Amino acid sequence: MNTYYQPSLCEGDNYLTEEEAVHCARSHRSRVGDSVELVDGCGHRGSGIIKSITKTDVAVSVSNLITDPLQPCERTWLCLAPTKQMERTEWMLEKAVEVGIGRISFFYSQYSERRTLRLDRLRRIVIEACKQCRASRFPLLDEPKAYETLLHEDSEAYSLAFAHYTQEDLRSLDVFAANAPHPVKLIVGPEGGFTATEYRAALTSGYEGVCIGDRRLRTETAALVGVILIGEHCNC
Amino acid sequence: MNTYYQPSLCEGDNYLTEEEAVHCARSHRSRVGDSVELVDGCGHRGSGIIKSITKTDVAVSVSNLITDPLQPCERTWLCLAPTKQMERTEWMLEKAVEVGIGRISFFYSQYSERRTLRLDRLRRIVIEACKQCRASRFPLLDEPKAYETLLHEDSEAYSLAFAHYTQEDLRSLDVFAANAPHPVKLIVGPEGGFTATEYRAALTSGYEGVCIGDRRLRTETAALVGVILIGEHCNC
Repeated sequence: MNTYYQPSLCEGDNYLTEEEAVHCARSHRSRVGDSVELVDGCGHRGSGIIKSITKTDVAVSVSNLITDPLQPCERTWLCLAPTKQMERTEWMLEKAVEVGIGRISFFYSQYSERRTLRLDRLRRIVIEACKQCRASRFPLLDEPKAYETLLHEDSEAYSLAFAHYTQEDLRSLDVFAANAPHPVKLIVGPEGGFTATEYRAALTSGYEGVCIGDRRLRTETAALVGVILIGEHCNC
Repeated sequence: MNTYYQPSLCEGDNYLTEEEAVHCARSHRSRVGDSVELVDGCGHRGSGIIKSITKTDVAVSVSNLITDPLQPCERTWLCLAPTKQMERTEWMLEKAVEVGIGRISFFYSQYSERRTLRLDRLRRIVIEACKQCRASRFPLLDEPKAYETLLHEDSEAYSLAFAHYTQEDLRSLDVFAANAPHPVKLIVGPEGGFTATEYRAALTSGYEGVCIGDRRLRTETAALVGVILIGEHCNC
């Protein structure tokens, strides 16, 4: 059964947006009477039947609307610097969405390798990944910010973790997540690393340095593994 | 400190292969006296100092050779069908190697979307990923096989799991891994799914159907999440 994004989802008749209607009619070659699923990106999911269909208009009758419970991973906030090769950031985003990330922010720090982002393109990746994995709740994707700004933003609602590769003896992220009293806000260092000043700023702002395994992971791998570990171990 | 692949690693003088020497001399612009690390792909790691260097020849004096302990993830065997878009398989391979997979096999089944693989290219990805994450033990990458052949290969040494997206109520992979008496051999279904015959063949061959989360993950995402969960939960 295919899933479509319907921002104004309601019980009864729903008319798909043109983009989704084209997808339904042309790509999936759907027909009247086919069962489909609609999600609104806010946690609601409805099963429906196609009532009428043309190449650009699709009407779906929805009879059963439910609200999905919020999972721990969906409360997680991932903050990272975009990678030099944009496709690495893009696949990480797709996969983080598939496994259920709740919020993603990008930041620019001293050694960030990339200073521009096409947020419209990233938003499309988010929506496609959500539809692929049948998620009803779409993650929040923020405008990129300066590292220092992001460090302090909404911090009081989260358990704060700061992952970077080091030889120091840090607590591992899975232990941190299992004992976190709040959902986790995780900052992952850029490819070029943090400056000593940036590292100190995180520590004095209440972040705990954590390690993600004992291997030197690429930024985008560390981010994805981090999201999966938090989803596995966090109870908030 | 940069890591280089030295198949014949020994204490004392080591002469890098031409490919690694070029990488060391040109890409990393190393100099006499620089500290480097050599790994042999079999679990041995040596720290050394560059004794001499030209554009194509590098001699490293190794004084301290250690054997890394084998981690649970390195005993894990992942079997999957290559994806239609090869870059999806390639990134999965890179990431699975980074997080420590021990063995990877590709298979062709009834609904496999792809029937060819460039194994030489995949082997290069494995080596580059190992160097990136400073792994001393390189995973085994097998020749692609028919699904039925792979199903029975070396099965007695493993706890056998079979992941595919279904509405059935299956045990989750993390619970399976935590209770597995042996290292895990995990089969992940192709994009087109398995036929009923293929599914039955797995069950009658001793595999247990498991689920990886409650979302419909892409083949390559399911494979990577599976490897990470086994690494987290398996004690063998």
